[in-house]
Amino acid sequence: MPDGTMRPTALRAPYHHGGLEAALIAAARAIAERDGPDGVSLRAVARAAGVSQAAPYHHFADKDALLAAVAAEGFRELRAALLARAEAAGGDPFERLRALAAGYVGFARARPALFRLMETPAFQRAGAYRALDAARQKSYLPLADAVAECLPGASRAKRVNACAAVWSLAHGMAILASDGRLGGLVDLSDLDKATDALIRQLNIAAAPGA
Amino acid sequence: MPDGTMRPTALRAPYHHGGLEAALIAAARAIAERDGPDGVSLRAVARAAGVSQAAPYHHFADKDALLAAVAAEGFRELRAALLARAEAAGGDPFERLRALAAGYVGFARARPALFRLMETPAFQRAGAYRALDAARQKSYLPLADAVAECLPGASRAKRVNACAAVWSLAHGMAILASDGRLGGLVDLSDLDKATDALIRQLNIAAAPGA
Repeated sequence: MPDGTMRPTALRAPYHHGGLEAALIAAARAIAERDGPDGVSLRAVARAAGVSQAAPYHHFADKDALLAAVAAEGFRELRAALLARAEAAGGDPFERLRALAAGYVGFARARPALFRLMETPAFQRAGAYRALDAARQKSYLPLADAVAECLPGASRAKRVNACAAVWSLAHGMAILASDGRLGGLVDLSDLDKATDALIRQLNIAAAPGA
Repeated sequence: MPDGTMRPTALRAPYHHGGLEAALIAAARAIAERDGPDGVSLRAVARAAGVSQAAPYHHFADKDALLAAVAAEGFRELRAALLARAEAAGGDPFERLRALAAGYVGFARARPALFRLMETPAFQRAGAYRALDAARQKSYLPLADAVAECLPGASRAKRVNACAAVWSLAHGMAILASDGRLGGLVDLSDLDKATDALIRQLNIAAAPGA
């Protein structure tokens, strides 16, 4: 506390500066992952974080703003996961592209509730939540970069179509796999292998002649 | 009415046999398409259908059962839309496959709220709602059939991977396009053309050598 005294409220709200905001986001995420987004309320989040009912309103206008912050955190984690996969894949752009697709699908399947929250239709409209917009846009760049490296010298139209196809396939597989719906067709127990098999169905995903 | 008399209740509930069930499904669908699934309650549906508050419970155990019936109707309409596209596409299996993908994406983009409802994660678990299961499974068959016709003599593994890839790509594009998210990459104003361009990125989607 600024004045160094112990006040009763300090026992319930031991947060300052960014600490409270992060704690609220963590509490909202835990509730959303356990009960779904509908289980989240600013009241329940305040209780879970051990702060006063009024405290969340210092940081979030309403429940949707708090959920948007959770979604933004999800997109930042997705980007980090993709970059880690790309780095581990090494120098071949086709291997990197397949690793990125597997990373995308694996992220969704490992965190289905978070991925669904990130997918909330209202959160896709640019301009509604600035930090979320930025995190979402940046999360797609590793895929777009890998596609561009697989198609050096290709026309913009060709690159764009390939990029949209890779993203659509990875996104669809992420949704279907996280719901367990592809299980009748594909062995999801080795998700990297399953994603590799599907992404290889795209012309772009293997080196010419490979 | 069977006996030809006008009874007071007949003014509020002019339904009999399957009529009431269909009216409740239609009312629930209209509310879900306007306000989202969260706006649906058996009370609101009863009011919209002009029947007593108790009437919905004769047909549906709870709100989820009613929404599952709306989702099942959606999958039956999806199947009908796909079959119509397949028939219009004519005899070439590759053209038919691309037309089916375009039909899938077009269905989702034309009815985003219904498609999102059909996508409800809890509705994907087999066994929860029998009629929904059947309608969902049947809706995928036109795509699977077209893939098989594009790959005569192929191994089962090859057919299955191609089928899962087509479905994943179409599904991902359907979700992304219905949220408007692919708009930055692809011109969604001609959705058939856009889908055709993406589906052609798959090895399977064009005749060998085409």
